[in-house]
Amino acid sequence: MKRLAIVGSTGSIGQNTLRVVEHLSDRFRVFALAANSTVDLLAEQTAAFHPAVVAITDSTRVDAFRNCCRAKGVPVPEVVTGEQGLRQIASATEVDIVVSGAVGAAGLAPTYSAVASGKTVALANKEAMVLAGELLRNTAKKAQATIIPIDSEHSAIDQCLRSGRLNEVKRLILTASGGPFRETPAEQFPEISPEQALNHPVWKMGKRITIDSATLMNKGLEVIEAHWLFDLPAEKIDIMVHPQSVVHSMVEFVDGSIIAQLGTADMRTPIQYALTYPERLPSPLAGLDWATVSRLDFMPTDRKKFPCISLAYQAMHAGGTTPAVLNATDEIAVEAFLDRRIAFPDIPKMIENTLSAHQNTAADSIESIIEADRWARDYARRRLT
Amino acid sequence: MKRLAIVGSTGSIGQNTLRVVEHLSDRFRVFALAANSTVDLLAEQTAAFHPAVVAITDSTRVDAFRNCCRAKGVPVPEVVTGEQGLRQIASATEVDIVVSGAVGAAGLAPTYSAVASGKTVALANKEAMVLAGELLRNTAKKAQATIIPIDSEHSAIDQCLRSGRLNEVKRLILTASGGPFRETPAEQFPEISPEQALNHPVWKMGKRITIDSATLMNKGLEVIEAHWLFDLPAEKIDIMVHPQSVVHSMVEFVDGSIIAQLGTADMRTPIQYALTYPERLPSPLAGLDWATVSRLDFMPTDRKKFPCISLAYQAMHAGGTTPAVLNATDEIAVEAFLDRRIAFPDIPKMIENTLSAHQNTAADSIESIIEADRWARDYARRRLT
Repeated sequence: MKRLAIVGSTGSIGQNTLRVVEHLSDRFRVFALAANSTVDLLAEQTAAFHPAVVAITDSTRVDAFRNCCRAKGVPVPEVVTGEQGLRQIASATEVDIVVSGAVGAAGLAPTYSAVASGKTVALANKEAMVLAGELLRNTAKKAQATIIPIDSEHSAIDQCLRSGRLNEVKRLILTASGGPFRETPAEQFPEISPEQALNHPVWKMGKRITIDSATLMNKGLEVIEAHWLFDLPAEKIDIMVHPQSVVHSMVEFVDGSIIAQLGTADMRTPIQYALTYPERLPSPLAGLDWATVSRLDFMPTDRKKFPCISLAYQAMHAGGTTPAVLNATDEIAVEAFLDRRIAFPDIPKMIENTLSAHQNTAADSIESIIEADRWARDYARRRLT
Repeated sequence: MKRLAIVGSTGSIGQNTLRVVEHLSDRFRVFALAANSTVDLLAEQTAAFHPAVVAITDSTRVDAFRNCCRAKGVPVPEVVTGEQGLRQIASATEVDIVVSGAVGAAGLAPTYSAVASGKTVALANKEAMVLAGELLRNTAKKAQATIIPIDSEHSAIDQCLRSGRLNEVKRLILTASGGPFRETPAEQFPEISPEQALNHPVWKMGKRITIDSATLMNKGLEVIEAHWLFDLPAEKIDIMVHPQSVVHSMVEFVDGSIIAQLGTADMRTPIQYALTYPERLPSPLAGLDWATVSRLDFMPTDRKKFPCISLAYQAMHAGGTTPAVLNATDEIAVEAFLDRRIAFPDIPKMIENTLSAHQNTAADSIESIIEADRWARDYARRRLT
């Protein structure tokens, strides 16, 4: 019986993780749940999974949580709060696996704590590896922590890599749906509305990641993630557009064989894989329906039309705190686009400007990374006014 | 330095194996070569690879071989002959890896010897596993021999299986090009000429296997092979038509993930994989060209139009000597079709008739299998006159 701490339990990854735990209740027990402020759902989850501890980042919501529990007749578990509370459950000795499902830079601190405590970390928080990849990789080595990605692309690569050895890899091929503007001429990009950009063809996700999928920044960030997760240089990581998103990613080996992972667009598959790794257990989900995926297309990415890809590669090469600046500026730029303050093609321009202004430093502590993140947000926001 | 015995060195698999050995000359040395009767090419190979022994099945060709060697100024190696000679090199203590590349039932005896001697067997001879799968599997277990398939489909499955455990497999999905008559209406099958049937869309192969690809019997035989190679029941082995033959086969695991192997249609890739397994070494071949394989299609097989598939499943279920009868009758039927003595739809009919007449027995020795093979050939030939 493995004991879990689920950081971000009320978000999409957290909810899907709990569905997997429900299905595999003979294997997993929930020791801790953590949410930011959605205490009514957190109380429901408490009623269903009986965690010993819950972490509520926003301490002003603790009373509301207690009231929700009482209203449901649920015994109130131990409550911890703030970033300190997140760190506490992520490093608790009672915990075997930490599911890092918090969104944004807030997920960084608990992910680092979990890694430093030698946990198995099922990683969905994209920012962690983008912002602090080198630090997390080095810390994981030292603490003998295992990081297993939950992202469908990185989970696919993780699965494909089992067919060979790391030094036998020619390149990773991350697949990209290409977003809603794959076939839109670049000339029309200035007219793209937030509504159009939020209409992702395959995955239903949060707003920022949906816009990132439209600019392909999402794929750029995934390249940085892959770089640190799998310890492979940028030259060995490619992107290929695959509109159907059935092949979740591939690994090309030096002998010419390409190994690919295919599946449905359901996050429960990579979540379950991360929790049960290296085992594979039966899933209650329907398998891939070949009648509907009878045709798969592949094409190169257009880096001219989608400059965010090159910006990400550039930030990865620069290293240090530059990827943190890339990520933070992108978040501000996406917000500004959604608020109709900037046009779609201004997103990469804003990032490029901030990267140019940034003084790169070593990303050797969470503090230095958070500082770069803050600097980038301030800088980008000031340029907006 | 691994020492090889290459059975069938003058055939397509043998020649491709020697090209791989040439490329990886720091890893492999040729201890023995074996051919049936093509002694001029065998002498050329002797000049290039300096085997200590050559086996020539047809003993009347030994003098011709010696003359070829002398004409080229090549020292004549030790020569062994007949089936006994094949067995001898396949079990020689100097040999680490036996490449079983002989075509037809003739490859059975040396394959069995190699397996019984605990060698690593790189298996291209399709008949071995079809005719004697159970015997070879049991013998391999006892002798601690490793059988690594060279067939592109089975090599693909072998590679995909590394991503999980055997008891986590939901099903193997063998891909089939579908042959030249995938879109031909069944009503037109009686008019199919040998020339049309020999025109395979993807692979350039021998005549029997090309016709087997047109009837899909080839895929049926591969299902039987997979059954014994991977120790999985018939219910867990499926076939899917994939006209581009880029995905060489797939494995679906119980957790819903499908792992696929993709590559070019060059036998040197699976040959090299079998020789270097579990390592993967750089290949001199150009990788998959995504510009030309931008679209991949998948569709179910039509078992009504291609009854050979069901006949193969039926023979696999029956077990014993029935698969040997299936294979032998198919060979006779294909010959008869190529000689314009029977029509294309008569191939499965002839096989069905012979299977019905066959008295199934245990396939517990090479002799009993060869006997069933002979019986089927006689029976089928008699029905032709």
